[in-house]
Amino acid sequence: MSAALPGESCERAGGIMSAEVAEQSAVLRRILRDGTPGIREVAAAIAAREPRFVLLTARGTSDHAALYAKYLLEIRCGLPCGLASMSTTTAYGAKPDLTDVLVIGVSQWGGSPDLVASTWAAREAGATTLAVTNNPDSALTAVAEFHIDVLAGPERALPATKSYTASLLSLYLFAEALGGRDGAAAGDLPDLAQRVLARTGEVRALASRYRFAERMVIISRGYGYPTAKEAALKLMETCYIPALSYSGADLLHGPLAMVDNISPVIAIVPEGKGGEALQAVLARLRARGADLFVVGSQAEVEAASAGFVLPTDGVPEELQPILQILPLQLLAHEVAIARGQDPDAPRTMAKTPETD
Amino acid sequence: MSAALPGESCERAGGIMSAEVAEQSAVLRRILRDGTPGIREVAAAIAAREPRFVLLTARGTSDHAALYAKYLLEIRCGLPCGLASMSTTTAYGAKPDLTDVLVIGVSQWGGSPDLVASTWAAREAGATTLAVTNNPDSALTAVAEFHIDVLAGPERALPATKSYTASLLSLYLFAEALGGRDGAAAGDLPDLAQRVLARTGEVRALASRYRFAERMVIISRGYGYPTAKEAALKLMETCYIPALSYSGADLLHGPLAMVDNISPVIAIVPEGKGGEALQAVLARLRARGADLFVVGSQAEVEAASAGFVLPTDGVPEELQPILQILPLQLLAHEVAIARGQDPDAPRTMAKTPETD
Repeated sequence: MSAALPGESCERAGGIMSAEVAEQSAVLRRILRDGTPGIREVAAAIAAREPRFVLLTARGTSDHAALYAKYLLEIRCGLPCGLASMSTTTAYGAKPDLTDVLVIGVSQWGGSPDLVASTWAAREAGATTLAVTNNPDSALTAVAEFHIDVLAGPERALPATKSYTASLLSLYLFAEALGGRDGAAAGDLPDLAQRVLARTGEVRALASRYRFAERMVIISRGYGYPTAKEAALKLMETCYIPALSYSGADLLHGPLAMVDNISPVIAIVPEGKGGEALQAVLARLRARGADLFVVGSQAEVEAASAGFVLPTDGVPEELQPILQILPLQLLAHEVAIARGQDPDAPRTMAKTPETD
Repeated sequence: MSAALPGESCERAGGIMSAEVAEQSAVLRRILRDGTPGIREVAAAIAAREPRFVLLTARGTSDHAALYAKYLLEIRCGLPCGLASMSTTTAYGAKPDLTDVLVIGVSQWGGSPDLVASTWAAREAGATTLAVTNNPDSALTAVAEFHIDVLAGPERALPATKSYTASLLSLYLFAEALGGRDGAAAGDLPDLAQRVLARTGEVRALASRYRFAERMVIISRGYGYPTAKEAALKLMETCYIPALSYSGADLLHGPLAMVDNISPVIAIVPEGKGGEALQAVLARLRARGADLFVVGSQAEVEAASAGFVLPTDGVPEELQPILQILPLQLLAHEVAIARGQDPDAPRTMAKTPETD
């Protein structure tokens, strides 16, 4: 029941997802080497339009990448951002004035009819439109004025993994270039990702904790919040565990009532201001006797029931999400295998859901 | 174990929540009668500023009212909107340029330090600021330039109920006035709400279905989506049931894998475009043998495993959320009582969570 290592046969359950997770260090390296010049060109052309407001449009895993971009664009570029509700244009025919608005559609395959339709409507309404996809020949690319290819390569497992981290890094490089910075801090990520991904055995041992879990709560704050949402989605897709994700502050507005000493909590604790802002919530959870699994620094892991120490020395907080999700992808894979499920092909999922 | 009726003693478990739920028809009537003139004045003053974008800031139940306002402002006022991430300003010190931006803070008590701080920061950054609260003497009211009092009266049960529907109606009247309309369609709501709230016995019978539920999935689309999120929060707060809410389209991007024939699904099916857009998802759920409980029209309820028929003849889709949540508040209350829990005072909750 062990997962396939890169180079091994992918025929056992979960072998495709496992191989794609393992590719991520190489994908990050490829983006830094081959993708950066094109991303900078797109950013320069968009900066010249002087957008005042950004709307991000996405679903599923890509929605979490969009949320990450929202934090970056607000904090590092001073641009107010919103996540678009596609149905306002596609179902209700809303006609907002989008002059001075940058609309960014994020999608792994770039074909969702509602995303294509809402991006087209945005362009008609005066927006500057940018498609961020893992498929340069997609319908979304065709309707958007600008395009960034996240260069993750074909993704065959149904749960998206390498296309997620590839989207994060591409959006980071875009936001940095839009803000007139070079994004050089990302240079260490491929090596650090490789170190994290080599620790599969450690994650496999931790996965046994969740063999019989019936629910999970996953929290973070600030830059780590998209990681919490994406980890929850991976666990739901691969293990069918209802996993609820919250910004730590929102957990205190009601859902904390659900947490007891048999409900595992996973906390992604960024090193930086997001992690500081999460401390009060962690203290409340410890006081309730919650089973707390931390992805974060050595000190944070030691104060928890269990955890995964992330090598983030010198990695700025805004880049940590690209590393944080890696052990959680591995965890989703390992828990699925332990529960006898095939993470490559979860029941009911299709790679390209055609929602409108 | 029956809930207290208005005028009865509130000393039994859930009596306070039950009484406050029952007050909602009177609260809606009060807003229409006493609140409308003030709301129109605020809307006229804000319309004169000609805002180009709207950012909504809220947490918990108020966040769902904010999401409702987002649909209204985008669809009916043509204003692009975003839900703000408070931590970008309060934790990370983001300094976006908010000229031409309307920032609306929605909060029942109006005292959350992070909401107050982010509203203040928005005002300093050039935004027009509006506080929508159930407490005219709050810190949020003091820092915002404009204020709407939602007139729900003191709310003592920890799960917010009447302050939610009061916020929805107040935001509806505000958006209609901002768009130069009179909001007259809301005139029937108090009577319709009274008819729904009289059907407690019907909901009590339905509640037995969920006595032993270990998880729930709650879906809707468009205007009904905030109802799905708010219903999930009520069930988590009062019954400690992990309840996952999705826009129907997002459900197909992974979480559908979690739904099996023992996981109950509640679908809020608006009569209108949101309901139409949800049909494909309902068909998928029926094909999977999901236990489907519908809040919607007679025809939709008949096609489901169970449901609550909402009297929405002639009620425009954008007003239906004010009625949709009522049977779900009753359901949360009744399931909590059936499970031996006190919905007035869920474990771990405080009425005024001081998050920063």
